[in-house]
Amino acid sequence: MNAHQKTADAIEEVLSRARSLASQHVRHREGCFWLEGVRQFVQAYDARLTFEAVIYSPILLKSDLVEMLVRRLGAQGVRRVKVTPEQFRSVSTTPRASGIAAIARQRWIPLSQVEPKRGLCWLILEEIRSPGNLGTILRTAEAVDASGIIFVGPRCDPFAPEVVRASMGGICRLPLVRTTHEQLGQWSQANGVQFVGLSPDADYLWSELPAAGAIGLMIGEERNGISTQLRELCNTMVRLPMAGHADSLNVGVAAGVMMYELVRRSLQ
Amino acid sequence: MNAHQKTADAIEEVLSRARSLASQHVRHREGCFWLEGVRQFVQAYDARLTFEAVIYSPILLKSDLVEMLVRRLGAQGVRRVKVTPEQFRSVSTTPRASGIAAIARQRWIPLSQVEPKRGLCWLILEEIRSPGNLGTILRTAEAVDASGIIFVGPRCDPFAPEVVRASMGGICRLPLVRTTHEQLGQWSQANGVQFVGLSPDADYLWSELPAAGAIGLMIGEERNGISTQLRELCNTMVRLPMAGHADSLNVGVAAGVMMYELVRRSLQ
Repeated sequence: MNAHQKTADAIEEVLSRARSLASQHVRHREGCFWLEGVRQFVQAYDARLTFEAVIYSPILLKSDLVEMLVRRLGAQGVRRVKVTPEQFRSVSTTPRASGIAAIARQRWIPLSQVEPKRGLCWLILEEIRSPGNLGTILRTAEAVDASGIIFVGPRCDPFAPEVVRASMGGICRLPLVRTTHEQLGQWSQANGVQFVGLSPDADYLWSELPAAGAIGLMIGEERNGISTQLRELCNTMVRLPMAGHADSLNVGVAAGVMMYELVRRSLQ
Repeated sequence: MNAHQKTADAIEEVLSRARSLASQHVRHREGCFWLEGVRQFVQAYDARLTFEAVIYSPILLKSDLVEMLVRRLGAQGVRRVKVTPEQFRSVSTTPRASGIAAIARQRWIPLSQVEPKRGLCWLILEEIRSPGNLGTILRTAEAVDASGIIFVGPRCDPFAPEVVRASMGGICRLPLVRTTHEQLGQWSQANGVQFVGLSPDADYLWSELPAAGAIGLMIGEERNGISTQLRELCNTMVRLPMAGHADSLNVGVAAGVMMYELVRRSLQ
């Protein structure tokens, strides 16, 4: 096997690995995820995520900053894989191929190691069907300096490519926690975190949130809302009033309205 | 030509017309739009939109209510086109073909005929790039009983299939207006409607909205915000505070936060 063939094989191996990360099962098993685009790449670098490999196509890439970051990562020992535009497009998940992508390590924090009282509030999520909605929630959470996101159970995967993209960098910088219903209950009691659930059938309005203390906002699944198991952990349930024939709001909008209500109070 | 061939030709003609409505140009020229799915169909019926044709596939359709409404529309003289599941899927724009769709007339209200002071607030939109975002804004607007949506200039098309879908019925029931910058300026002055623009560089916070009177919320395009021409019509500019590295919110979330701030005040 000549050197040229060896390089071609090495490239194909990385591209194949990149493609395999489209599967939640593989992402979970390997603890990695795929990110691409100038903005995401710079944010991931800036947030000091651990890179496993950088895939770049100099012909597509139009950013001196990114080229410099790629060189720096190379100097730190990160594997750099130079590909053709065709090869890049074969792994790209976006409509316009930027020429820069990476395989990075997922960063999770154990619930026992978070600061319960830092930040505006926790977001508690069990299941959000649409990756776009989940990404939007992460984006807003970062904008309001949320404490972090606590995923209860295995269903939500914030490292799916569409979530990463819609989160606009939120995925890189927010503390992300995965836990169980039982541990979450113990944690809230031990740390005095009040859980507020959002549900259209609640008695209280969203503007009647608890006045003080650390808060965990629970946002339910698009159609079925908060599960019974999570509901049992809630200290308060609130609703967003709706007029007319509307029976629901987009879950990303509802979460945003809740978070900004807390921002408004924090400014008073 | 036998009767069977005539029917086949008539079906193909309607399906071809349905496909042509994917184009904004055609929708505009014909004043029609395409809607599909049980929920959308029922909402459109309920909102008394004018139907041109109903396309249904009895094999796919699983709703007695919809079948009854189809019969009623037929009795009113609306053209009914019974198709096979394959034919239905050939025009369907959704992942799961419901078996019910329609071509309906767009409903617009002239600016001169709206009630400026009815409802929570007007939404003033010039350009929203993502149909999903526009649909989400319409959905929230309906939920808060907004006065209606004023589209300035030709760029936003609320009758694009993805907008119709994401609006969750909002498109059927909200008063929709299309106007020019000049007419909008005259209308706001004549009717004492205050225009509030949302922009990250504004001096005021979103919680410092004008205390009383009819309000028009101006929401700008995803990247570039509100155009200079619209900005000149604004009485106040406000911003949503952002922390950390975030430089923007999803436009549907931002619009939702603004609308619920007005709801909160209306409850006080």
